[in-house]
Amino acid sequence: MIWQPFLPYNALIVRYNEIGTKGRNRLAFEEALGESLQRVLSPVGKLKILNEHGRLFLLPEYKQHFTAEDIQLMRDVLPTVPGLSSLSPGFYTEPTLEAIEAVMVQWFDTVFEAFMAQSPRPALTYAMRARRADKKFPMTTDELERYFAKQIISAHPELSIDLKKANLLVEVEIRYHQAFISFERIYGAGGLPVGTAGGVLALLSGGFDSPVACFQMMRRGCSVDYVTFHSEPYTPPEYIHKITSIARQLNNYQPRGRLVAVNLLPAQKEIRDKCRSRYRTILYRRFMLRIANRLAKLFGSKAIVTGENLGQVASQTLDNMAVIENASDMLVLRPLLTFEKLETVAIAEKIGTFNISAQNIPDSCTVFAPDDPATSARLDFILFEEKALDVEGLVKQCLESAVIINPDTDAQHLLKDLPVGDRRFTI
Amino acid sequence: MIWQPFLPYNALIVRYNEIGTKGRNRLAFEEALGESLQRVLSPVGKLKILNEHGRLFLLPEYKQHFTAEDIQLMRDVLPTVPGLSSLSPGFYTEPTLEAIEAVMVQWFDTVFEAFMAQSPRPALTYAMRARRADKKFPMTTDELERYFAKQIISAHPELSIDLKKANLLVEVEIRYHQAFISFERIYGAGGLPVGTAGGVLALLSGGFDSPVACFQMMRRGCSVDYVTFHSEPYTPPEYIHKITSIARQLNNYQPRGRLVAVNLLPAQKEIRDKCRSRYRTILYRRFMLRIANRLAKLFGSKAIVTGENLGQVASQTLDNMAVIENASDMLVLRPLLTFEKLETVAIAEKIGTFNISAQNIPDSCTVFAPDDPATSARLDFILFEEKALDVEGLVKQCLESAVIINPDTDAQHLLKDLPVGDRRFTI
Repeated sequence: MIWQPFLPYNALIVRYNEIGTKGRNRLAFEEALGESLQRVLSPVGKLKILNEHGRLFLLPEYKQHFTAEDIQLMRDVLPTVPGLSSLSPGFYTEPTLEAIEAVMVQWFDTVFEAFMAQSPRPALTYAMRARRADKKFPMTTDELERYFAKQIISAHPELSIDLKKANLLVEVEIRYHQAFISFERIYGAGGLPVGTAGGVLALLSGGFDSPVACFQMMRRGCSVDYVTFHSEPYTPPEYIHKITSIARQLNNYQPRGRLVAVNLLPAQKEIRDKCRSRYRTILYRRFMLRIANRLAKLFGSKAIVTGENLGQVASQTLDNMAVIENASDMLVLRPLLTFEKLETVAIAEKIGTFNISAQNIPDSCTVFAPDDPATSARLDFILFEEKALDVEGLVKQCLESAVIINPDTDAQHLLKDLPVGDRRFTI
Repeated sequence: MIWQPFLPYNALIVRYNEIGTKGRNRLAFEEALGESLQRVLSPVGKLKILNEHGRLFLLPEYKQHFTAEDIQLMRDVLPTVPGLSSLSPGFYTEPTLEAIEAVMVQWFDTVFEAFMAQSPRPALTYAMRARRADKKFPMTTDELERYFAKQIISAHPELSIDLKKANLLVEVEIRYHQAFISFERIYGAGGLPVGTAGGVLALLSGGFDSPVACFQMMRRGCSVDYVTFHSEPYTPPEYIHKITSIARQLNNYQPRGRLVAVNLLPAQKEIRDKCRSRYRTILYRRFMLRIANRLAKLFGSKAIVTGENLGQVASQTLDNMAVIENASDMLVLRPLLTFEKLETVAIAEKIGTFNISAQNIPDSCTVFAPDDPATSARLDFILFEEKALDVEGLVKQCLESAVIINPDTDAQHLLKDLPVGDRRFTI
């Protein structure tokens, strides 16, 4: 529900709380964030980035001000940018009281009218906030806030101050070389910019959870590659298309994540024929982890990521998690471990994977799925079942058919035909 | 900001989305939730619990209706009850239109007046929601909603419908044997009731994160025991008091979690004397995990829980996490892995650990802390450093002095003097 009017904003201010505190890494983080912003805002045209003591300012390089479409694009795409705390389009002007006041006089009434035109009308709360990086500016933030608040309140006595939950926000930032006035905050995804925390390999499936797990990792600075498991011809080719679409959508939040599709059927058939049916799901997942370990080492990934959640389905118990993880040499991370289903779904909607995941296409897990999956397996029982299998041989057999997909171009190649190793090579 | 007036409510309706879907585990979950509610609401007096097809109803056993203090207590304590989706105090009456309408006629105006008396006045949005478990009730939910919405809107035309973000809520539930009318929802912590997912052992420290990690695990049904590490006499006795207070506060959300306090100094001294200083923090944490593993096995815990977060401090990298986890045989879970600091702090405030954690008392991690901690350690380097140490001997030496504390009573005993094994024995 955007009520803000379009104004001829000439700059963006970018806020990033957490990475501002990072000491020696700060420059690298700021650079990664600037790159992310330039990438997602490329339709806006070239941007000039000014790095100003804990804030970035983005200015359009070849136009006087942003267009209404530019601002709408920002509202659409910025909420998913990792590392971005918030961003405001606004007016970049001289750092003098006169210049700031001129902007207020020119535009505040337009903002106020749009605010009052909302239906239903929200609580008439406002906040006037000032920040001052340049302590030589002749007024303190308190004085600045009172100066403008007084004008606002005398013109509009129906407004009441609410610093915590203001529906109408006026912000002034005094920097060393300019001042900045804004009336809107667009919140980013928070966290750390993509690429600052290293690479991980995520198990991507057809459900709602694993894409959200990927995004959560990106939000903490990780670059994510994806591996998915199918069981062709038992699973339809549409399954790979679905997963490729999810990966393509996720790649909007990072550059060039790769997808590997592995046919798990050779292992699944052996498990079906030689092991107790109630352990099938666990044995499948142990194979998935083993295969993911090989791929992760190939890609130089530092950890495996899964969408596992505690107690969401009957088989996601602590016992099963431990038994499954036992098949991995590498760190296994579960960003959604304690999430509620509703929280996960809300993020899936925000990042645009919900509708793709909602397509009902059978995946590997449903192939030969048992009626009575074990809800708390014991490791020794599982190891006993695996004695009947040529584990190493089956892992190799599955990897033989592995295909590497560039989700952005849909280019596919057999993994074994390609020189791999470079983290972000292009197929 | 509670604006609701006090009304003589004669029942509570309890909602629990997720556990309602659990099939065969449902009864166990409902029982665990009922127990949790009876425990946190014990000041209210004895409650009768009626289990009614996906809802619990709680009725005061020895009084006609709840008091204003009872309702206030509910507003205070229920938001932290794991497994509880939401709860409404309300009126329990005959499942007939006449009886429901009588409640509306008697009380709606009082609610409406209180709603309008708020300052600042919120958006005047309302929603009238009906649910019908008993399909034999002569009106459909649509008909019921329209019937009452029409009355409300004709008396108060300033209200506008907003089903998603209504500030004024009227809910009617038609069950088989009764109807229930409410004007307020108190939200619980969601998730699963404590005790349904098994026991875990959490590393508890003086920071904000680890208590929140404990609570997140409880919210997914785990019972949590705690282990903390001190370095007396380098750390003050107040450190143990602080951790005991945190554990006591956390025990409000579960029955009888135990705290073990271990002096890490013997290991720390050896590490200081024999290993490279930049690896100290990692070597400390590997010892913590080893000791936690022993205790977890003693207690029958199914996993170790830490407050680790990716990238929050410079040393919390994927590399370091992997190298530290390598010292654990057990599953290590990190519920806060991708949390923002602000999210963690908000939960800490909600569960009442924030102010305790804020006390500035030195902990084990600061003892002999290096100036230049390694931000991405390699496992082979760490294993080489540990060759200089008698790892097994040091673990034993630390455990010799371990004290087990009942946070609820402050009773303390040497761990080695006690028969351990029973999950929830009382000291």
